[in-house]
Formats: sequence, structure tokens, C-alpha cells
Amino acid sequence: MAQYKVMIVGASGAVGQELLNVLEEKNFPVGELKLCATSRSAGKEMYFKGQPYVVEETQPASFDGMDIALFAGGEASKEFGPLAAAKGVVVIDNSSHFRLDPQVPLVVPEVNPEDVKLHRGIIANPNCSTIIMVVPLKAIYDAAGVKRVVVSTYQAVSGAGAEGIEELTAHARAALEGRAVTPAKFPYQIAFNLIPHIDVFQEMDYTKEEWKMVKETRKIMHDDSLAITATTVRVPVYRSHSESVNIETERKITAAQARDVLSRFPGVIVEDDPAHKKYPMPLFTSGRDEVFVGRIREDNSVAQGLNLWVVSDQLRKGAATNAVQIAELVVKYGCLGKR
Amino acid sequence: MAQYKVMIVGASGAVGQELLNVLEEKNFPVGELKLCATSRSAGKEMYFKGQPYVVEETQPASFDGMDIALFAGGEASKEFGPLAAAKGVVVIDNSSHFRLDPQVPLVVPEVNPEDVKLHRGIIANPNCSTIIMVVPLKAIYDAAGVKRVVVSTYQAVSGAGAEGIEELTAHARAALEGRAVTPAKFPYQIAFNLIPHIDVFQEMDYTKEEWKMVKETRKIMHDDSLAITATTVRVPVYRSHSESVNIETERKITAAQARDVLSRFPGVIVEDDPAHKKYPMPLFTSGRDEVFVGRIREDNSVAQGLNLWVVSDQLRKGAATNAVQIAELVVKYGCLGKR
Repeated sequence: MAQYKVMIVGASGAVGQELLNVLEEKNFPVGELKLCATSRSAGKEMYFKGQPYVVEETQPASFDGMDIALFAGGEASKEFGPLAAAKGVVVIDNSSHFRLDPQVPLVVPEVNPEDVKLHRGIIANPNCSTIIMVVPLKAIYDAAGVKRVVVSTYQAVSGAGAEGIEELTAHARAALEGRAVTPAKFPYQIAFNLIPHIDVFQEMDYTKEEWKMVKETRKIMHDDSLAITATTVRVPVYRSHSESVNIETERKITAAQARDVLSRFPGVIVEDDPAHKKYPMPLFTSGRDEVFVGRIREDNSVAQGLNLWVVSDQLRKGAATNAVQIAELVVKYGCLGKR
Repeated sequence: MAQYKVMIVGASGAVGQELLNVLEEKNFPVGELKLCATSRSAGKEMYFKGQPYVVEETQPASFDGMDIALFAGGEASKEFGPLAAAKGVVVIDNSSHFRLDPQVPLVVPEVNPEDVKLHRGIIANPNCSTIIMVVPLKAIYDAAGVKRVVVSTYQAVSGAGAEGIEELTAHARAALEGRAVTPAKFPYQIAFNLIPHIDVFQEMDYTKEEWKMVKETRKIMHDDSLAITATTVRVPVYRSHSESVNIETERKITAAQARDVLSRFPGVIVEDDPAHKKYPMPLFTSGRDEVFVGRIREDNSVAQGLNLWVVSDQLRKGAATNAVQIAELVVKYGCLGKR
């Protein structure tokens, strides 16, 4: 079996570490591995299949001869992404820089795998909240059509990286001990609070996070007429995003039918047994690769409607797992870069 | 000015304490005050305007000669409510027992104050999540009509009483110290988690809490055609419920117009200045009597739509404040019980 020269750019962060974990767990055919990051993290030791690797500072020359570069996100994507692609490396990018570029495929493997074949060097990994919603949405879309989606999110602090995690702990400790809380990463105290503000505010007073859920979903689903509105909220949960998703379908679908199509859809686990208090919760989905769906209910406030409660680990399926799945498709379709 | 003989039934609980606070803060014309509760709390001392009062066990005779009885909720309402009403006491009841009874007015003073006049001894105080939603909803209803509402809630643990509050603290401490968490009041760990399950499951797999938001809102608004769907979720916040409310209006209303009608509506405070990071958050609305509304945005996913983020202290406006406001209307309209 062929092996590939794989690198992670931004290896030392929360998503970088998960990329490394998922490459190992999925037994991706890694022939050679290179871990890169900013100079601040250079020299750090990380482990892959029991072997230590030293993180190098990302340089233009770092990409020479590599096959696939998984970018964890941030500024490095803008700085090195196009350069890496020009050198014949397939870039799988977790930042938002290229997602809406018409020349860059935006891929969720359960939804639009074939789009991988259209890449010109860069393939974008969607926003975490978008990925988590779009997987079950596609199952319903295929079964009953989708007219309109109203989504409200409950997003974990690890969406803001390792600093977000540390800040929730610091705020919770301070609040429990009656000490003053000093927000740094978040605009306000996040422990025992909710902040309806993720990423920057943009047109019509929607946040960038909210627009991502609208625009990226349309691109992934190849349906510009898909009506979507989103409200995104940070909650005091460490890991796994949750979403209350209301779907107006084109055709009638019962809760039982929805449960059936969802449970047969790849990457989805249905947890929906109210009598036994079974429904997805963020505390119990962390470290998992699937999207968990429960509270599946017909919505009679509209001719054909459905309510879903969707939970998934946003560092896994919402980021690292989806990126490695894209890398698997690149290998499967044989669409590596040309050198 | 006339003074009234007022009693609180269930005085020793979280809502009972707030009822006492609000009676004092609003300077309700209390001529005589009686505090009642179950035998378990009898003998407890509580303060009103600096004077100590001893909690008595609720007995049928407790109601003799009283004018107004504020019931904090629970089983006492079913047991003593009709009896108190038969004795000529106006019962203002915070339980769910009588809310959907066609002979019992269900009142939010900013929305349907005149319904107080129709009482036959019992006036019901709506569910906390319903009250918090229906106040801003009425402002929009009057300005642009309402076709459909999709609401997702983020509900504080104090909605489950003092035990809910203690359990969040206990779970948070245990989780931070790496100790095992033992849920009692909630079905699962609530600290650093979300539980999409409030009250019991009922028809169509909706919870009773979700049905309350549908059925009570229709009754309060006098509009049985109002289409509403709800998903209710417990979040690790001590106090104040938050709601993401999507409204499809009959007529077009801009965000600016919505901001205007909401800011002029009684009981509403608009906090909506994204450029200065101003939006309602549960941590900062506790102890307040108003409903805070922010993140006011037009929703273009439908012909005429609006998104609101609504936060309010569910022990105040969601319970005690609303009940005392009803008592004020009873006095204002002179519709006390007949003896």
C-alpha cells in the first residue's frame, strides 16, 4: 500500500494534537511525518505511534517534497497555503480563509465527497458548527428536501482553543471561591454564564460564526436557495458543540422516518429514547468521531417540520476527523498534487 | 390607602423568598402578612421590612380572612388552591395545575392584564420560560403580527429550585477536582454539560416544559392559531433563563423598528449594541425584574422574520415579580374575592 509524506501545520495547538491523534487512530498511510508550527512552539516534542517528533518552525522550504499538508487553522493558512499548493502539496485547510473561494472545494465527506476531485491544491475544511449541522441535514435533505433551517447553537469553549479551556476552568474556580473573574480570551466571564457572541460582528448584526453556518452550508450542499438563519452562543462546556436545529422540509417526513434515515446515514449515531433518558449530551460525546442526533420530533408549527438536537465533538468531527477524512478521499481518488 | 391581608404559601423555597422580596421592593400595600409552608419548614424565621415572621404549616384555616394568597408552586396549589378560593381569597398560583383550565385566567400583566378581571378565585402565573418569551413577543405581535415562533431555551438550574443551585455547585467542584459526580436533582451531571430534558416527556416526544411554551403562550395571547415549536435545554447557569427566539411575522418589520417597539414596551430593556459588545447575558440580569432583549436581527431566511436573544431572571419576572404584578392588578381593578 502506498504511503504518503504528511505534515501538520500548527501541530502544537488543540486541533493540531487532534489531527495527530486521528491520523494515528485511523491508521492513515503516513510514510513520512513532519510537524510544523510557529517559532514559539518549535522544539516541542510530540508523539506519533510511540515515536517522538520535534516540532519545526514552518518555513517555505518545509513543504518541499511533501504530499499532504493538514493546516490546523489561523494565520499560517493565508501565509503558507497557496505557497504549499504551488509546490504540489495538497493543502487541507481548517482556517476560514479559503472556504468561500469558488476555486476551493469545501468538503464534508459524508455530504459532498466528490468535490475533493475538483481541488487545485487547496481543499477547505468547514467551520465546526457547520460540519456538525450539515451531516444530519444531508440525511434529511436526501429523504425529504429542506426548505428552511433555524439553528441555535450551544458551543463549547474549546472552540476557542486551549486558552478557552483554561479560561473556563479559571473562571469556574474563581466564581466558586468568590474571587473576581478576569476575562481574557472571552469578552465576559464564561463560567456559569452564556455569551451570545462568537467571532466578530458583521452585516445585519450577525456574527461571522452565524454567517459561516449560512454560507458554508449552502456551498457544501450545492444549494444556494437553502434558507438558513443562525444564532450562535458560547456556553460553559469544555468540549462538543450542541445545536437545536429546526428544519422545514419540502415533503412530509415523520419522526420515525427521520430516525430511520439518520440512523442509516454515515457518521451519524441516533441517541433518541426519551423513556430511558437517552439523548445526546456534550459531556458524553467528547473524543468521538460521529455526530449524535436525538430529540427527533415532528414540528407541527409548520406544514412539514422537524426538530433535532445535534451534538458532536467539534475538535474531532468538527475539525480534525473531517480533515483526515478529506485526506483519505484525496488518496482514494488519487488526486494528489502535481509536481 | 387600603391595605391587604396577604399570605405566601410555600414561603420558604426559592420562589417564596423572591415573592417576599418583591412584595417589599414594590411596597405592595401589605396590611397583614402570613407565611405558610409544609410542616418541614414550619418554625423558620423570615424577614419582611425588617420584621421577623415565623413560617406556619399550611392548614385549611390558614386562609380564613385573608385577601390574597400567593402560591409559590408545587403540590400545595392543588391541595389548598380551590379551598382558599372558596373562602374568598384570591389565589395567585405559580404551579402548572390550573394554567390551562378555561375558567382560570393565565396572566402576564404586560400582555393580557384585563384577563385578571375574569377570575373566579384563582389566577394562574405562567411557566417561567413562557413569561420571558411572551413579553417581547407581544411587542412584536402588536407591531407586525406573529405567524410562527421557533424557540430554543438555555435554562438556569434555579428553575429546579434551591436543590438545582446546590447541585450545580457540587457538580462543578467535583468535576474541577477530578472527583466522581453524583446526579440527584438532574438526570446527569449538569456542570460543564447540557441536558436537553426539562420536566417529563409527553406526546410527540416533546417535554412538558416544551408544551407549556406552546399552549400557555396561545392562551395568554388569545390566539389559538399561533404556531410555536420549542426545544428546552438545561444549561450550567445559576440564574436567569435565556432564549433564542425566531419569529416569522405577518408583516415586514425591520430590526430598527423592532428595537424601537421593544424599547417602548413595558417590562422590556433592549440591550443591543454589538459594536460595544452589549447583549443580554444571564450572569448580569439576575435580581432584575425586566426582560432583556438583544441580538435583534432581521431573518432573511423567510419573507418576514426576526431573531431575538431574550434573557430574564426566571425567579423574578419568570415567577415572583409576575405574581406580585398580578396582585397589583387585582387591587387596581378592585376584583378581590367575595366573602
